[in-house]
Amino acid sequence: MSIESILTYIHGSNQVALFTHIQPDGDAIGSCLALAHLLKITGKSVDVYCQDKVPAYLQFLMGTELFQAKYKKEMDYDLNIAIDCSDKERLGIFSNDYLSAIHTVNIDHHISNTLYAKTNLVDPKAAATGEIIYRLVRAFTDKPCRDIAEALYTAISTDTGGFRFCNTTAHSYRIAAELVDCGIDVEQINTHLYKTNRLERVRLLERALSSLTLYDDNRIAIISITQEDLFATGAVESEIENIVNYAKDIIGVELGILLKEMNDGTVRISFRSKGGIDVSKLAEQFEGGGHRAAAGASLNMNIEQARAGVLYAARIALEDYN
Amino acid sequence: MSIESILTYIHGSNQVALFTHIQPDGDAIGSCLALAHLLKITGKSVDVYCQDKVPAYLQFLMGTELFQAKYKKEMDYDLNIAIDCSDKERLGIFSNDYLSAIHTVNIDHHISNTLYAKTNLVDPKAAATGEIIYRLVRAFTDKPCRDIAEALYTAISTDTGGFRFCNTTAHSYRIAAELVDCGIDVEQINTHLYKTNRLERVRLLERALSSLTLYDDNRIAIISITQEDLFATGAVESEIENIVNYAKDIIGVELGILLKEMNDGTVRISFRSKGGIDVSKLAEQFEGGGHRAAAGASLNMNIEQARAGVLYAARIALEDYN
Repeated sequence: MSIESILTYIHGSNQVALFTHIQPDGDAIGSCLALAHLLKITGKSVDVYCQDKVPAYLQFLMGTELFQAKYKKEMDYDLNIAIDCSDKERLGIFSNDYLSAIHTVNIDHHISNTLYAKTNLVDPKAAATGEIIYRLVRAFTDKPCRDIAEALYTAISTDTGGFRFCNTTAHSYRIAAELVDCGIDVEQINTHLYKTNRLERVRLLERALSSLTLYDDNRIAIISITQEDLFATGAVESEIENIVNYAKDIIGVELGILLKEMNDGTVRISFRSKGGIDVSKLAEQFEGGGHRAAAGASLNMNIEQARAGVLYAARIALEDYN
Repeated sequence: MSIESILTYIHGSNQVALFTHIQPDGDAIGSCLALAHLLKITGKSVDVYCQDKVPAYLQFLMGTELFQAKYKKEMDYDLNIAIDCSDKERLGIFSNDYLSAIHTVNIDHHISNTLYAKTNLVDPKAAATGEIIYRLVRAFTDKPCRDIAEALYTAISTDTGGFRFCNTTAHSYRIAAELVDCGIDVEQINTHLYKTNRLERVRLLERALSSLTLYDDNRIAIISITQEDLFATGAVESEIENIVNYAKDIIGVELGILLKEMNDGTVRISFRSKGGIDVSKLAEQFEGGGHRAAAGASLNMNIEQARAGVLYAARIALEDYN
């Protein structure tokens, strides 16, 4: 579906609701806020729904207080727009509310999108949903306001790993340039996104690194994090996320693995590859899944048993690869 | 001086020598290589000089073997070009050789540039010398080859902290877009630049984090690294550089400080501020210097004495700031 038909729906609506996915990331929050700001400027009434809270690192964006976790049953929306959701289950508790409007629009960039709305604007070539929202914004104005520009920069930057992942295109950089022209403070945004660390997370990192163990001529690196590590440092589970990269990024390492002891006694495994070994296949052996370079699985055993099992499978994968 | 006059000198020369600064960074190496590739394509004979080695993280660039650390006395260059050097002392052992050519050109973006050449092309508005070299390249071709594009992307990315520092402009992002159009592999370059770590450096980081101490309601954070830390981990001094950011980036910290015990018994101090406190003034108290957000000094005492002295001064700076 084209941008123009979405614009027709927007122009014909007064009460609009935006929805994004559970456990929202920068693209979800940034894209929602940019569109919410735009709709408000054009005089619409807008509600913004997300089941889960806006993460701390995104709280600097203007308008994060707009997000609501309770649906206004009394509202009779003309138009419901789902943003950055590949299927309606990603809407969490709002998946039925979303479908209740006369017009439903689905704006997303995931290739796996199930086209669950009446009108679907899905572009898998976009590095982020924020790039599609940018096109919508540009249909209204050549130079969006700073709040919109900051939200879109955040959306695109976070989904491209700070303009570093392979999904980053020349177009992503061109949009960044145009957003800088709108007066955003590049350093300030990047400080919020990438250079802000809770002390508890730094303490957790120290403990995680002290667990770092290398195997097989340093081609496999394993980090483990226990419940005791979280308890002792005061760090929270979401702060574990990127620590696996410290294992993967070591020169010579082909497979970086993180073992995370969960509070239900299971062990969550994150597999990362430099690209040579397909870790989705490794994860499948443990009934998990993912992509070639990043995958995960859950094991119902203690962390030392999990280490032994994962290491055994990793060694075979490494041998097959060589 | 305009690009056009530099082009006239280039067109009129056959034997060209390029020079860059001691302890070269990504902008120095990338800018040199881009210009060297360009000159070779246009049929010139080119020699490239740098006193110090190309750092490991830049070795992926095509042509790093061109760098020479010994001047060819027998050569009679038509044109010597200094790149990214704010003064001729930055050329190290080559400062006199550089001045011996009939034509000398100085291409740089440092505001402190002393205009030491016959022809000076200094643009302090450029985020990197690579941006000025890009202009030169574009005078020859609309679409430079991949080797040139990779070198220029590296130059601009490294001098802007991966397009994140406040010197990043819309123009920086637009050049990045045009370089992507030349066929560079964004993810691969960024992996080389920012996601590659020696195991020894990870081990050093662990020890550094275990030394992390916070003072004054977590507003001052100090990390210390001793000769013993380097010895035990096998890390080298250049790998210490960015570790101070782990102190500075903690939420609530105003002053991040790194104490580095040197092998001559002195202690090198790195001061980092979130922007509030002017650390150049703090460094000046110890006969050092720098910028508002990043400064340094050397102390002729042992590391515990240095910690006490620096902490005392830091507390006063913090009090004055509040």
